[in-house]
Amino acid sequence: MSRNPNLVLTQARAPLTRLTEVMDEQGEWREQALACERPLTLYLNKREIVTLMTLGEDPEALVLGYLRNQGLIDKLDDLLAIQVDWEVEAAAIVTSHTPADIEEILSKRTVTTGCGQGTVFGNQMEKLRQISLDAWTLKQSQIYQLLHTLNQHNETYKNAGAVHGCAICTPDGRVLSFCEDIGRHNAVDTLAGRLWLEGIPSEGNIFYTTGRLTSEMVIKAAQMGISVLLSRSGATEMGLQIAEQLGMLMLARAKGKHFLVYCGQNRLLLDDKPAPLLKSSKRRESNE
Amino acid sequence: MSRNPNLVLTQARAPLTRLTEVMDEQGEWREQALACERPLTLYLNKREIVTLMTLGEDPEALVLGYLRNQGLIDKLDDLLAIQVDWEVEAAAIVTSHTPADIEEILSKRTVTTGCGQGTVFGNQMEKLRQISLDAWTLKQSQIYQLLHTLNQHNETYKNAGAVHGCAICTPDGRVLSFCEDIGRHNAVDTLAGRLWLEGIPSEGNIFYTTGRLTSEMVIKAAQMGISVLLSRSGATEMGLQIAEQLGMLMLARAKGKHFLVYCGQNRLLLDDKPAPLLKSSKRRESNE
Repeated sequence: MSRNPNLVLTQARAPLTRLTEVMDEQGEWREQALACERPLTLYLNKREIVTLMTLGEDPEALVLGYLRNQGLIDKLDDLLAIQVDWEVEAAAIVTSHTPADIEEILSKRTVTTGCGQGTVFGNQMEKLRQISLDAWTLKQSQIYQLLHTLNQHNETYKNAGAVHGCAICTPDGRVLSFCEDIGRHNAVDTLAGRLWLEGIPSEGNIFYTTGRLTSEMVIKAAQMGISVLLSRSGATEMGLQIAEQLGMLMLARAKGKHFLVYCGQNRLLLDDKPAPLLKSSKRRESNE
Repeated sequence: MSRNPNLVLTQARAPLTRLTEVMDEQGEWREQALACERPLTLYLNKREIVTLMTLGEDPEALVLGYLRNQGLIDKLDDLLAIQVDWEVEAAAIVTSHTPADIEEILSKRTVTTGCGQGTVFGNQMEKLRQISLDAWTLKQSQIYQLLHTLNQHNETYKNAGAVHGCAICTPDGRVLSFCEDIGRHNAVDTLAGRLWLEGIPSEGNIFYTTGRLTSEMVIKAAQMGISVLLSRSGATEMGLQIAEQLGMLMLARAKGKHFLVYCGQNRLLLDDKPAPLLKSSKRRESNE
């Protein structure tokens, strides 16, 4: 990891699931894993910023990605410490300077549709317009390879349900980073934080999520310089609108050999069409 | 409706879906419905409160339920007007007085795990401890009747996916109110607002959701005086913890004849056990 050598960073990964006893419809009792959910209050240079509800898989990366995506940290060199202490449910972040416009950034509260944290402060849309994304071509065969590889992830989901998975993947099918959280916004912020900390460029990669592509998910992917979106679930009108404006390739309802391309169709090469079914199988997006 | 007769209220229900052209994995094009997602900024007596991202099914009820659940409106008699104008994406709410502690309420930002809006301001947990809920007994047969009735709802979901449904139902299987929104928090706030406006008591009823029972969903149901929770999806550890503390009956993963009781098992009468399957069918909660 090409981290700032002086950076003080805890590694406060928390237990992700807990077992409980549940009763089923027959009156039989069994053990059931539950996804954990815990509050984490962020203090940037002692200023309270927000309380996130999180699974706790990688809280330092979550905190960093959140602050970056909110425009509260611009340069990794400014970061001096992230210290997460679950005893007091707090993350203390120290930077060499606080953004001059912090009060303005914090004064706008946009609460989006997203699972998990969803607060995009007001100045994000303006910054988005300055982003220019590479319009590279994806192959259908690459999608299938990737979906196959991703099947091996989602550990907490397989164990306990109630979480979303997100990943940054290369076009040749490698999963650079995978993260689960109660909310898909936390998961994508964590990925952003991790890649930033480790000095891995996110540009030119694919953003995968088990959750819906709402406006904020599309925005967060664009903030990472990513122009290909792949979701197991659906998309909203506004998610699509932003993706179109930014020239993204947006694929949704991707399961098995199926997918739907919502925009950027000209960036997809159909090199691996599956044999058509005699009768189209019934598909229904999960109510994510 | 037993509304305040002087109340000024728009009825700004917006179009819920829009058609778009998508391409599938065979390169074939088709029409696909998309759930709409639009910002709505709330101004309480001209003070900007928050921007919610919403489907727009019943924005006035959403606004009212949101303000009530945040502790920003306590009495319906105080409410003078809710005027929603999609042209400017704003809701102007006028009340006869602004709460004295509004700055304190707004200074705390807790962003929860929930789809949709998720911001619970800081004083909610304290108020919760004052709630006492009725511990009435539910019958298994009532659950099955209700799940059957609820199958007829979820219109936007059936059409476009990407939304959550929530409902308030009576123990005898009537759906008092059903609402869909991009986020489950918006849906439950809308239900709270509707019932309050129409003078229908929510106490003694059942809260149903297609989404997960995270902490905030449990809190919002408790705020409505509801002590039975029924979800098609799962629950988080913190959702369960709060439900246990409040003596709620929490049922999750309810589909067909299956369900799991997470707490309050002694409040459920198993009067309609299904014939056990020879081989238990594989069940997996949807990644909501």
